[in-house]
Parts: sequence; structure tokens; C-alpha cells
Amino acid sequence: MKTISLMGASGSIGLQTLDVIREHRDTFSLTSFSVGKNINEARKMIEEFNPSFVSVQTEEDAEKLKSEYIGKIDVYFGTEGLEATAVDPKADILVNAVMGSVGLGPTLKAIEAGKTIAIANKETLVTAGHLVMKAAKEHQVTLLPIDSEHSAIFQALQGENSKNIERLVVTASGGSFRDLNREELKAVTVKDALNHPNWSMGSKITIDSASMMNKGLEVIEAHWLFDLPYDQIDVLLHRESIIHSMVEFHDSSVIAQLGTPDMRVPIQYALSYPDRLTHPKGKRLRLEDIGKLHFETMDLERYRCLAFAYEAGRAGGSMPAVMNAANEAAVALFLNEKISFLDIENLIEESMGAHQVIQDPDLETIFELDKETRSRILSKFKS
Amino acid sequence: MKTISLMGASGSIGLQTLDVIREHRDTFSLTSFSVGKNINEARKMIEEFNPSFVSVQTEEDAEKLKSEYIGKIDVYFGTEGLEATAVDPKADILVNAVMGSVGLGPTLKAIEAGKTIAIANKETLVTAGHLVMKAAKEHQVTLLPIDSEHSAIFQALQGENSKNIERLVVTASGGSFRDLNREELKAVTVKDALNHPNWSMGSKITIDSASMMNKGLEVIEAHWLFDLPYDQIDVLLHRESIIHSMVEFHDSSVIAQLGTPDMRVPIQYALSYPDRLTHPKGKRLRLEDIGKLHFETMDLERYRCLAFAYEAGRAGGSMPAVMNAANEAAVALFLNEKISFLDIENLIEESMGAHQVIQDPDLETIFELDKETRSRILSKFKS
Repeated sequence: MKTISLMGASGSIGLQTLDVIREHRDTFSLTSFSVGKNINEARKMIEEFNPSFVSVQTEEDAEKLKSEYIGKIDVYFGTEGLEATAVDPKADILVNAVMGSVGLGPTLKAIEAGKTIAIANKETLVTAGHLVMKAAKEHQVTLLPIDSEHSAIFQALQGENSKNIERLVVTASGGSFRDLNREELKAVTVKDALNHPNWSMGSKITIDSASMMNKGLEVIEAHWLFDLPYDQIDVLLHRESIIHSMVEFHDSSVIAQLGTPDMRVPIQYALSYPDRLTHPKGKRLRLEDIGKLHFETMDLERYRCLAFAYEAGRAGGSMPAVMNAANEAAVALFLNEKISFLDIENLIEESMGAHQVIQDPDLETIFELDKETRSRILSKFKS
Repeated sequence: MKTISLMGASGSIGLQTLDVIREHRDTFSLTSFSVGKNINEARKMIEEFNPSFVSVQTEEDAEKLKSEYIGKIDVYFGTEGLEATAVDPKADILVNAVMGSVGLGPTLKAIEAGKTIAIANKETLVTAGHLVMKAAKEHQVTLLPIDSEHSAIFQALQGENSKNIERLVVTASGGSFRDLNREELKAVTVKDALNHPNWSMGSKITIDSASMMNKGLEVIEAHWLFDLPYDQIDVLLHRESIIHSMVEFHDSSVIAQLGTPDMRVPIQYALSYPDRLTHPKGKRLRLEDIGKLHFETMDLERYRCLAFAYEAGRAGGSMPAVMNAANEAAVALFLNEKISFLDIENLIEESMGAHQVIQDPDLETIFELDKETRSRILSKFKS
């Protein structure tokens, strides 16, 4: 039996993680989880999975749950609660599926505690990849990617020596607006943006897919996870999202991982790794039914956010954290209909242009820059 | 330095094996090789690669070479010569690139001698897979596939547990006649058949590609190499020959190996395994330049030879050997313009229909059946 603690249980990845556990009751059990404000979901999860403790965002919600489950379960809250989930001594694996930079601190705690971590939280590696990977190396901790692209690369690298990598090819569906030119992008709405062609995900990540920032964040993540320079990480437009990503080796051989779009596959792989389990609910890939797979060059002038990400990654130090914070603030403004879709790019460009790179920033500096960048952007649009 | 002995040096795979050795002089050296009647090629190879000994088909050619290279090199001939190459004590790896059933005996000798074998000789596994795999297991010998399809599967399985395989998907370009229906196939010529869309190969294998028997032989080989029942081996029509084959696992994840059509890649992989080397002359895969990959269901009524192969494989025992012999004889007749293209199928069907399966046949029985089947077919067309 593999025991699992789960940060971010009520989000899209969290819910699908629970579905994987549900499918494999004999193999996986949930020892603890965290949610934000969704304590109704938390109640259902407690009933179904019977964990040792849970963590919620506010003290108030914690008290509420405590009184409902007296003697049955411990309830924590806030940062401490999240960290308790991260280092849960009963868990073999931590699944980090929280959204945003709140995932960073607990991840570092989990690494210090020697936990194997299945990671879906992009911000952790984007903003503090240097700290996370250094700590992971020091504590000999395995980071198992949950993103479909990184899982694909990780799967393609099984049994291979990473010194033989020529390049990674991260595939991108192109998002909701792949058929629009820059002129047409000026007028798109939030509703348009939330209509992703292949994957059903949260709203922030769906906007990031439309702007291609999501792919940019993935490139930075790949840089850290697979320890490769940006020149060896390419992005390829592939509409069908069937090839989830590829590794080209020095001998010109390419190993790819394919599948129907289903996040439970990479989640389950991270949990069962290095083994694989059945996936009875999974839709089998039948390429003969799909008929054609398409591939196009990724245009960095069309997708400026991807260019920003390469730029930020290459600049290194504090720049990716600033880019990420600017993007989060800008996406929030777009979702609240305060700015246009293309203003997301403009705000990121502005923030990056105004920032002087700090090399090897510590956690505090990263948090500080994150806060500063967001509030500078948001303050402009306070009405 | 890895030392290599090479059976079938002047064939298509043999020459490309030499090219791989040529590209990696610091890593590979040739200790011995065999050719058939092409002693001009043999002379060039002796000059260039300086092996310890060579083997040719006839005593006459052997004497000729001996007198030319007195004191420099040993020269053997015939079956004994081939077997000497197979068990060359100076070689770390034997590359078996001979055509036809002549490869079988030496392969078994090499296995008994504990050699690692890179195998391109289809007939060995098709006609005597049960003997070869049993011996390989007994002597703990590794068989490294050189065929692009089996190499793709072998590469996809690195770091994986074969108990997790759902199925293998062997891709097929469809051969020279993929756009013709059965009516149109009646009138095709030898010249038409030799015009393969993607790969440049010998004439027998090019005809086998057009008839889809080549894929049938590969299915039987895959059955033996990867120890899977025929129900778990599918064939998928994929015109571009870019995805060389795939493995689907129980979790619905699919690992594929891709590349531009270049036999030196699987050959080199077998030689460098488990490492990979550079391939400076290799054409890199750029899917954005290719644009589209196509996939279609394989129609077993259109491609009857593939249906025969599944049938022969499932019948087991001596049936694949009979099918293979009938096919070789029929292809020879077609190449000599004695029969039509569709008569290849008819002759195979007839031979298989007339044969009573012998379970677990020994080497002698296989050779006997091989000879019998061929001569029965060829005798019909003696003029």
C-alpha cells in the first residue's frame, strides 16, 4: 500500500488524484489532504477516504470541521496546515496540486523531510527552481512530474542516460486562440479564452494556455526538472494533444509518450512509478480513429508570452518569478474584465523590462518580488 | 572498444552496419565478417576494416582471397565459415544480417557460445523462434533487434516492466501498392513493386513490403522477441514511416519511437546499447517540416499475407516455417516474372492449407519442411 498526502485536493488535479486513488483502493490510500475554502468538498473527502488529518485555509473553517468530526480526525489550517500536509509522516508521497506560489514553501519543507513529491504546482519550479532542485539533490528527493508534458518527457527518459539528450520537444495544442492572428486577438473575451479545445482545466491555466504562457512556464519547469539549457528545449505546435511531448537523443532517435488527453494518466504514473497500473476508465488511444496528427512551427512573434518565458528563463535569477507574478496579476485582471487579452502580454513585458535580475535569490526575496510585482500591477487598475 | 563480427556484410543491413562502425572508429571495430559471392566488396572491407578473418560462400573464392592476403588474414567458407563468424571469440557482438534461413544455424551456435546478437535476420525467429528463444534464455543471451519496428518497441520498453504491456502497435507504411485495390493489384509488375515509398532495401524485402508479408514476419518476430500472444500485437498503417512502432501499456499510456527513415539508427542502437552515440550523418526529425502524420486501419482482406502470418503464428509449431518458405519461393518466382503478384498469396495459401502442423519442430524438421515447401512450389514452374 502506498500512502499519499495531497495538497490542493479540491482543484482539478486534486480531484483527479482522488479519482486515481478511488480506482486503486488496494494500492493507494489517502493519509491527509488540504483544501482552500471548499469545506463541503472536504467533508465528502473525509467520509470517502478517511484520512488522519485535513487542512483548510481559515481557522474558522478548521473549527467548524473539528466540531463535526470530534475524535475522528485532526484539522489544521493556514500555512502551518499546508506544511503539515506536506510533511505528513504517514505519507510515502506528497502530491502538490495547489495553485500559485503558496505551493513553494511547503514543497521545500517536504524536500527537507525527504518526501517523494509528485508535483503539479508550476510556480514552485518556475519561481524557485534553483532552490528546489538544489534542496532535492541535497536530500536525494525524487520529483515526479504530473503535468502531461513533463510526465511524457519523464516517461520517455526511463532507461535512458540523460547525457544522450539532444533536445526536448514540448508539444502545445495552441490553446483556445490558435486560429486567430494578433489582430483578431485584440477583441477576444474571457468566455472565448476559457473554451480550450482539448483539455478541461481551471480558468487560470486555460487563460495561460490561450496566451501560451502555460507552455512558457512548462519550458522553465522542464529546464529545472531535466537540468537542460533552454537551447535544448523546443516547443512544437500539435493541435491534437496526442503526443504529449518527446525527447530527441544524439543518435537522432526520438522517444515520445502519447495518449488521449486524460490527466489521470500522468497522475497515476507519478503515484505508481516506477510501476504502471491499469486505468480501467481510460480512453485507449486509437490513432486509426484519429487519422491525422498535425505539427506546426511555434511562432514566437504570434505567441509573445512564450518568448517572454524563454527570455526570463535565460536571464535566470529572479526574472522568472517576476514574470510569473506579473502574469498571475494580469490574468486575474483579464478574468475580471479589467484589461484586454493582449494587455496580459503588455503588463508582463512592462514588469520584466522594469526588473533588474537578482542572481540566486533566496525564498524571502522571491516572495517579496512576487508581492511587489503583483501589487504594482493591480494598483494600476484599482477603481 | 566494442568488437563486432558481421554475418552478411555486403547486404543492405551489412553495409549500413559498416557505415556505423566507420562513423565510430573509437568505439567499434570489426573482428570478422562474412559475405556471399561478392568478393570484390570483401576485398574493400578487408582493406578498410582489417578484420582477423573473413568468410565467403565458396571454397574457390576462399582460395582466391587467401592467396591475395597471405599471412594477413584467415579465410573460411561455406556453413563452417559462417559459423566461425557467428562464434568469433574476439567479438563482443554478432550482427546477424544474412538473408534467408541460412542465418538460423549460425544464430543457434552463437547463442550456445553466449554471444550478444544484434539480429536483422527475420527467418531465424520466424521459422524457429521457439528454439532460438529457448536457447537464448538457457544461455542468458541478449537478442538486440535491428529491424526499425522491433528496435522501436525495444527502445520504448527500456525502463519498463513488460508485464505492464497492453499491446504492441507495429506500424506499416503500406508498401509500394498501398493506394491500389485488389483489382488493381492483378496487373502490377516487378518494377512497380520494387519502388518503395520510404525505405531503400533489398528486392526480396521490398516485395514483402508490397505484399505486407514483411509486416507479417515482423508480427511473428515480435511475438518471439517480446514474448506476447498475437492478440496483443496490432499493425497500424502509417504512410510516413515516422513512428517506427509503439507500446501501449495497461495505464493507456503509449510510448513510441520516432525518426526519419534511416536503418543506421536501429543498427547503431543495437551496437551501442544500452548507451546511445551521436549520429552525425543522421537526418534529424522535424515534425513541423513533415506537417502531418497519417494513420489508417490495416485491412486484412486487402493485405492477405498479413492475415496468413497471424494465422501461421497462431497455429504455431512448423506453420510459420512453411509460410516463410512458400513466400520465399513465390517471391523468387515473381521476381523472375514467372507468376503474378497476387499469385504470391495464392501459393502461400495453398502451402499452408496442405500442411499439417508439427508442434515444437526441431531444427532438422524445420530445414526439411523449408526445402520441401520450396521445391514443391518451384517444381510447378520449371520450364
